[in-house]
Amino acid sequence: MSSLTTHAPKGLEGVVATTSSICYIDGEQGVLAYRGIDIHELADNSSFEETCYLLWFGRLPSRSELSELRDRFAEERKLDASIFHRLHLVPKHALPMDVLRTMVSTLSFFDPEEKSNDREANLHKAIRLTSQIAMIVAAYDRIRKGKPVVEPDRSLSHAANFLLMLNGTHPSSTAERALDIALILHADHELNASTFAARVTAATLSDMHSAVTSAIGCLKGPLHGGANEAVFHILEAIDHSGADAVDYVKGMLAQKKKIPGFGHRVYHTEDPRATHLRQMSRDLGQSSGQTKWFDFSHAIEQFVKSEKKLNANVDFYSASTYHTLGIDVDLFTPIFAVSRVSGWTAHVMEQLADNRLIRPRADYIGPAYPQHWTPLDER
Amino acid sequence: MSSLTTHAPKGLEGVVATTSSICYIDGEQGVLAYRGIDIHELADNSSFEETCYLLWFGRLPSRSELSELRDRFAEERKLDASIFHRLHLVPKHALPMDVLRTMVSTLSFFDPEEKSNDREANLHKAIRLTSQIAMIVAAYDRIRKGKPVVEPDRSLSHAANFLLMLNGTHPSSTAERALDIALILHADHELNASTFAARVTAATLSDMHSAVTSAIGCLKGPLHGGANEAVFHILEAIDHSGADAVDYVKGMLAQKKKIPGFGHRVYHTEDPRATHLRQMSRDLGQSSGQTKWFDFSHAIEQFVKSEKKLNANVDFYSASTYHTLGIDVDLFTPIFAVSRVSGWTAHVMEQLADNRLIRPRADYIGPAYPQHWTPLDER
Repeated sequence: MSSLTTHAPKGLEGVVATTSSICYIDGEQGVLAYRGIDIHELADNSSFEETCYLLWFGRLPSRSELSELRDRFAEERKLDASIFHRLHLVPKHALPMDVLRTMVSTLSFFDPEEKSNDREANLHKAIRLTSQIAMIVAAYDRIRKGKPVVEPDRSLSHAANFLLMLNGTHPSSTAERALDIALILHADHELNASTFAARVTAATLSDMHSAVTSAIGCLKGPLHGGANEAVFHILEAIDHSGADAVDYVKGMLAQKKKIPGFGHRVYHTEDPRATHLRQMSRDLGQSSGQTKWFDFSHAIEQFVKSEKKLNANVDFYSASTYHTLGIDVDLFTPIFAVSRVSGWTAHVMEQLADNRLIRPRADYIGPAYPQHWTPLDER
Repeated sequence: MSSLTTHAPKGLEGVVATTSSICYIDGEQGVLAYRGIDIHELADNSSFEETCYLLWFGRLPSRSELSELRDRFAEERKLDASIFHRLHLVPKHALPMDVLRTMVSTLSFFDPEEKSNDREANLHKAIRLTSQIAMIVAAYDRIRKGKPVVEPDRSLSHAANFLLMLNGTHPSSTAERALDIALILHADHELNASTFAARVTAATLSDMHSAVTSAIGCLKGPLHGGANEAVFHILEAIDHSGADAVDYVKGMLAQKKKIPGFGHRVYHTEDPRATHLRQMSRDLGQSSGQTKWFDFSHAIEQFVKSEKKLNANVDFYSASTYHTLGIDVDLFTPIFAVSRVSGWTAHVMEQLADNRLIRPRADYIGPAYPQHWTPLDER
């Protein structure tokens, strides 16, 4: 293997796999910025639509550019009738992330630019996918519950339309803003595993639907997007058992179980997204009059921080936040995808603008070459 | 970015991303071996089923182990009726790789072990996916041509059953053996892009169907599995135009076009798979009485080798081989998947046996942090 120059740490930890202009992270200082703008400024001031523009075009939009993008999102709030038919065909026990992965893959059949892979076509696909993934998640949840699919309202924001299509009623402005902020916070995170899967897929000059389908399958895992569901299952178990939250987590640690929602490959201090989600979890708990999910979470966070020196990550407070917004636990990871599709598509376009096949090597540690094939009778 | 230790070459070229016991490649000597056994020995002596066993279990099977695996493949030659219904729903213009990616994702709905991710469940899924991907490719081709789906024959080999389900007639022993060898040659190739996408997906502790779905989307690209289709389009263009094959390729080079099927990230000498596929292309051409596809290919190969110092890779002669077997050009890449699923699933099981999240970093080169959010009126 003389031509190999670099043996990377396991999981490519700390390996710089590409340059990127999309997402700046300083894991020591706890900084996350999209195109250089701090996530705190965006969470306080921006909208998901504006954040999409920022990720895709590299700068904030003018008033007319933002208005045009909002219009495009609204126009794309349409799904081929056969998508609804296929959602009805899904067996009741199917996992929502499996359904979402399958339906996004299916959308490729209906994309008017499926055979084109240039920047303009991919920008259109990014808009369509961002608009329609939210619709699919909402429509699927209605269909599996035997409820009628809710027609989209093209006058609403992306966040408000999603909540309308999910719940059948217009959301409060508090709920709309909470989801909008959550979508901003989850929109991108540099070369996280699902984004990396999207770039590896796109780099063969495959296509946008393939890349986003790969990303959804990757996000599903409990070491990635699936963690927010795992967090809520713990909160629920505490609630059902009546146990003290800290005692419950102590018991998990005694059994050498990992506490989901803590620690991060990149951040060695507080995950800046957790700062906002903690506040949202607290605020939504207070305004809904149901503070127990925040209270459990806060007690667990303080204990794990002091006991294990681990900080809460983006997944930890999104669990209580989404639950308080009335969202089913098995939709938490699909909603992560509703947001992250903006980042995935931005990264695919960046990858294609200066592409090279992503094809590392493996260090062979199997039976020494050459072994030999032997006839069946001699084995 | 002080904690980052390694800036990798573009496309992770030459970077060792993991250890692996599955596939040994010596790119300088042109060696490919599965579990230490040279691909030439396997192509000459083994079967696809035996090769699957070798990839999954790390050694050649005993007679009874091989017999058991053949039986399991045959047993799994069944698809839920709704899979056929969905194949009928696919619009006629859909791309076969989009269809295959979607259907494999859909199979997750019906997998009896969908929620299990242990070695035993994943071995069962590997058998099911390997058996059923072949059926889906064949059934889809029949359905899109308005022909009835062919019932599987559980007494046949994997290769023969695939050709039966594709063509509606039992294959000749020459055709069966040719496809069997092609399936052996394509079964694994270390950390090629699609296998890497599968491992990145599996490493979040997602699941086998997600990993294989990612791999199919990745394989689709013309810089990966899609290359064999691109090769045949050139052969066809030569045939239609009546041009001399070398003149045609000279014209492409004059237009700075890349010739698909030549060069490889890893091999700096002849791709050992090309050796076999060249011979198969020649033999099949002679036995079918139609040698032009081999003749075009051979002339192009000799010219590109002398002019550009590039060797034919696995994709170059698979194009003429598959065409001579009567396979439509847009099924060439799906048939790559019919074989490579064996390697993908082996790599997923290996990844999970000693897992770590695959999450590299990016070197940020965008607008310097901090930029600032500004109100719309000030932009």
